[in-house]
Amino acid sequence: MATVNAERLLGDLYRLREFGAYKTGVHRPTFSEIDMASRRWLVERMGEAGLAAEIDGIGDIVGRSPAPGPKLLIGSHSESQNHAGWLDGALGVIYGLEIARAVAEDPELAGCGVDAAVWADEEGHFRSMIGSRSFIGDLDDAEIDELRNQYDGTPLRAALEAAGLAGRPRTRIEPGRHIGFLEAHIEQGDSLEATGLKIGVVTSIVAIWQYRIVAEGVQNHAGTTRMAIRKDVGLALAKLAVSLDATFAEIAAERSVWTVGDIKLEPGAGSIIPGRGEMLFQFRDVDPAQLDRFEAALASLVAAANEDGPCAIRLETVFKTQPRPMAERMQAALEAGAEAHAPGLHVRMPSGAGHDAQILSEVMPAGMLFVPSIGGISHHWTENTSDEDIVLGARAMATAAAILLKAARDG
Amino acid sequence: MATVNAERLLGDLYRLREFGAYKTGVHRPTFSEIDMASRRWLVERMGEAGLAAEIDGIGDIVGRSPAPGPKLLIGSHSESQNHAGWLDGALGVIYGLEIARAVAEDPELAGCGVDAAVWADEEGHFRSMIGSRSFIGDLDDAEIDELRNQYDGTPLRAALEAAGLAGRPRTRIEPGRHIGFLEAHIEQGDSLEATGLKIGVVTSIVAIWQYRIVAEGVQNHAGTTRMAIRKDVGLALAKLAVSLDATFAEIAAERSVWTVGDIKLEPGAGSIIPGRGEMLFQFRDVDPAQLDRFEAALASLVAAANEDGPCAIRLETVFKTQPRPMAERMQAALEAGAEAHAPGLHVRMPSGAGHDAQILSEVMPAGMLFVPSIGGISHHWTENTSDEDIVLGARAMATAAAILLKAARDG
Repeated sequence: MATVNAERLLGDLYRLREFGAYKTGVHRPTFSEIDMASRRWLVERMGEAGLAAEIDGIGDIVGRSPAPGPKLLIGSHSESQNHAGWLDGALGVIYGLEIARAVAEDPELAGCGVDAAVWADEEGHFRSMIGSRSFIGDLDDAEIDELRNQYDGTPLRAALEAAGLAGRPRTRIEPGRHIGFLEAHIEQGDSLEATGLKIGVVTSIVAIWQYRIVAEGVQNHAGTTRMAIRKDVGLALAKLAVSLDATFAEIAAERSVWTVGDIKLEPGAGSIIPGRGEMLFQFRDVDPAQLDRFEAALASLVAAANEDGPCAIRLETVFKTQPRPMAERMQAALEAGAEAHAPGLHVRMPSGAGHDAQILSEVMPAGMLFVPSIGGISHHWTENTSDEDIVLGARAMATAAAILLKAARDG
Repeated sequence: MATVNAERLLGDLYRLREFGAYKTGVHRPTFSEIDMASRRWLVERMGEAGLAAEIDGIGDIVGRSPAPGPKLLIGSHSESQNHAGWLDGALGVIYGLEIARAVAEDPELAGCGVDAAVWADEEGHFRSMIGSRSFIGDLDDAEIDELRNQYDGTPLRAALEAAGLAGRPRTRIEPGRHIGFLEAHIEQGDSLEATGLKIGVVTSIVAIWQYRIVAEGVQNHAGTTRMAIRKDVGLALAKLAVSLDATFAEIAAERSVWTVGDIKLEPGAGSIIPGRGEMLFQFRDVDPAQLDRFEAALASLVAAANEDGPCAIRLETVFKTQPRPMAERMQAALEAGAEAHAPGLHVRMPSGAGHDAQILSEVMPAGMLFVPSIGGISHHWTENTSDEDIVLGARAMATAAAILLKAARDG
């Protein structure tokens, strides 16, 4: 039932990898010429698979199945981070296409169908997940007017114009059309590899709470200013980074993560005591109580650092997302699919990264499946997964899709 | 003897402040139009004072006294740091001009003279102290060919051409002409102010040893990478910064200073564990044994951090200058001058900053005098010293000059 054609699946993945090939990875920024070429190729391949597809006004593609009965939506994003991996996003896109074909070819699933989805800019060259947000009706024109490329400042409107998308309508969700959304992705961590497992069934997509910690001291001469009177923000932020790490390690849950992603000191010269500094701090967890515990500890450490002096230190919230649980019914189907093809070699696990599935989960039951990442490497051109694991994951998801579609059809 | 005219001294200082006025400070980058205008004005004022002056091929001005007998060289630099204080450099330049006039006007000092010096680019817009280095014969054409403006990349040759200096000869020291060099400067720290003293007699200019500490880890996803397997250079450098500060505080001498001037993490984003980072670390002292003690501690802490892991950490030397002691004879004369005008209100002290006097000390006896900095502020437009302290410092140095010149003439 819904038999994946391994050669066809891998052939399409390898072909997609040629668009913007960079070392063993790809460089395919959203709305770049090569990104648009890959999207046009995806439209072609969808057409050949019997799906009615076109690129919409935000770069999304939803290849519609002609099946009259219940339909699943399956896909991911097709652009990449800069000079990054070939599977991040692409894997889930080609799974959607292949499972649409496998379902259409399966007489047992007559009447059922899969719409294959390709979302734009999950990676946030302009802003993370604007494609899936547009599809669920959560992206208005005013926001599009404001967005700019985070690397070169190009306005999103100009990028859409250059890509030939200006003026095209944006595809919106058709209420009742889909029984749910499935997304496959590389794990981007090493949990599966480290435990010898083959498939992760995502329970929830973690919340991300991100903060800017701002320190104000006094910029002064590094040779003539006595140590006793310095208000050195570099030292203040370094101390805070160390104490944050120690405290968070004490109060963390099993899957919690926390990161100082950046430290910036002004003016940043060898002979000047830095007078102003900023530090980006972020933590992630799936448990709202744990998130609150972390935030309280962070606020308390910042307040203590501020009181102890000599620098003024304050905490600014950059953003706080909420954990997005995946639908239990989708988890169960993915687990059954995994058990069918990799008995005993699957696990339920949270996703530490954000994905389009969290956006879709707001409007329909959503589920996610992970395949192992070699060495846990992600957002780097060396990112990889073995062909065997790629095919296994697709088979598990195809079986899950068959289970879900049959249940909906035969109710 | 050698009586300073307070009104003339302050008038010239205030006039020089108008060149590139910025808030209460100045913005007078080396070889900018306004810097060149101020140098032309200084040549004029020197001419009016009976000194033979012109701007040389590197921007230096040495206004030559016609006196047949012993001569002192007195001066400093006239350009400023960007958007910085009005006295840093300018004070010492106008002291040179005023003391040249005072000596010329003093019948008791008949036959004696002062050459007034204005050095170019002590502040290092291109490279620190190239003017005084050129004067002592320590700047060759090949180095000039290579240097570029550190802020906008303009080649030094192009800047000299634009300033009208290309092709002009560079003034070199005339062996035997000067009995010594004196430089006055604002303290740039708060030691004098904090102790209620009026004049600092510099004993030595500190050595600066600067290092780059490079950390190599693994860049990875801040959401999907378990804490246990991270190789986070931000955390590694923060820990090292904190332990460096603690260790240096334990082994420091009274006037030692040490500074983390910059930390740079790559790629520097909220959701990415930084995989490569650099930290600038610098320490200063006048005692070679203390410098060695510091370097040993630094090397040992870096080695320990590297061994402990998880990141590879290495130490690169950026530069190491040597302490430059001021001549005892010049210190004694400055102290006598200070005692004459501010009895009991002077102190011998090291200079925590580099100055042109360290370059001149390589070829003749050199001495430096400090006046108090209000609030110890430096390299900022709020830098200031009271008029009273400015005049007092000039009187002390004029008396010191008279003592030295008389001794040379009559000795």
